[in-house]
Amino acid sequence: MTDITIIGTGNMGSALAKRAAAAGRSLQILNRTPEKAAELAGELGSGVISGGLAEPALGDIVIVALYYGPAQEVITRLRGSLTGKTVIDISNPINTDTFDSLVVEPGTSAAEELAKLAPEATFVKAFNTTFAGTLSAGSADGKPLDVFIASDSQEARKQVADFVRAAGLRPLEVGGLHHARELEGFQLLVMALQANPAYESFNWGTALKILD
Amino acid sequence: MTDITIIGTGNMGSALAKRAAAAGRSLQILNRTPEKAAELAGELGSGVISGGLAEPALGDIVIVALYYGPAQEVITRLRGSLTGKTVIDISNPINTDTFDSLVVEPGTSAAEELAKLAPEATFVKAFNTTFAGTLSAGSADGKPLDVFIASDSQEARKQVADFVRAAGLRPLEVGGLHHARELEGFQLLVMALQANPAYESFNWGTALKILD
Repeated sequence: MTDITIIGTGNMGSALAKRAAAAGRSLQILNRTPEKAAELAGELGSGVISGGLAEPALGDIVIVALYYGPAQEVITRLRGSLTGKTVIDISNPINTDTFDSLVVEPGTSAAEELAKLAPEATFVKAFNTTFAGTLSAGSADGKPLDVFIASDSQEARKQVADFVRAAGLRPLEVGGLHHARELEGFQLLVMALQANPAYESFNWGTALKILD
Repeated sequence: MTDITIIGTGNMGSALAKRAAAAGRSLQILNRTPEKAAELAGELGSGVISGGLAEPALGDIVIVALYYGPAQEVITRLRGSLTGKTVIDISNPINTDTFDSLVVEPGTSAAEELAKLAPEATFVKAFNTTFAGTLSAGSADGKPLDVFIASDSQEARKQVADFVRAAGLRPLEVGGLHHARELEGFQLLVMALQANPAYESFNWGTALKILD
């Protein structure tokens, strides 16, 4: 039995794998290049399994730690093995030429579009406002990172919130999957600020937080 | 000469007036009920002028510290005296029956809709993510509050950023007025969390912050 499958071994995939291991969850790492998945699995310690994209996703939760474009492709390809699973989309569908708009239309979101590609899975938007560096650390300014969670399934939101809490982070459930629109939209602004030389202290290592 | 006109004497109007006074700006307070404007002006000290909505707005910057509905009405009414001025919209066009959607359509924002009502003014979205209590205090967790600023006019963004900085807060310029969509959208989620009994520590006194 595997708790969590992470697809992708980039900065975000690695950071999420580290958090999942910290949470004591059993892990499967998948990547287009199986050697990269094996390498990350090896770093995480014994018991972490790995493979390429021909392997079925085994985790109850499947985190697609990919950019929006590759996420579309991989979800379409793995659709069969996603049935009944909770799939987390972390993507930010930013127009990276301008950092001024999204590549999805108003009135939808990357998460909602991805969900259409695998209707037998339960989609959750989460981790799109956490940068890899701070996520890997797990905290910012001595406080647990905030992880915003949107899904039409209350059960899936709770399942992801439990994982987030176990990983030492603070889950904030914001409602239905359509709220991915606001999560992706705001992160566009946060990312544009990182890319803006006027904000020198922002270098892709900030944390969006609701201070209380 | 008056630096700033604040229309509205509610929690947000009062908090903004306090910040403006702290920034050393000369102030005019306007309100539908002139006695309320006079009362707030009196609390702020000598030199603060006040009046009803029949008075012209004198400030170089006019902050409309009203809910979206009344803001529409008041901007229409005062349109003549707003020509050439920088008008700040702070509103959050939330459907308060559900706290789950906005009353503006996808692909627009309260700020953009209000701007259409007074095309001779330069509109800025700002202060919609700051709650009155924390704004009045000026900081949260020992850090200056973040104030997100959107406007099509770079000059107006800078003018508002200068005010924000003088008021002891941190300005974050996020680009054109259309980015009010993301600012209003995200604040919908933040406000829904305040209204959600599952988040006990959130009581309309949190601060949205980019920790760096």
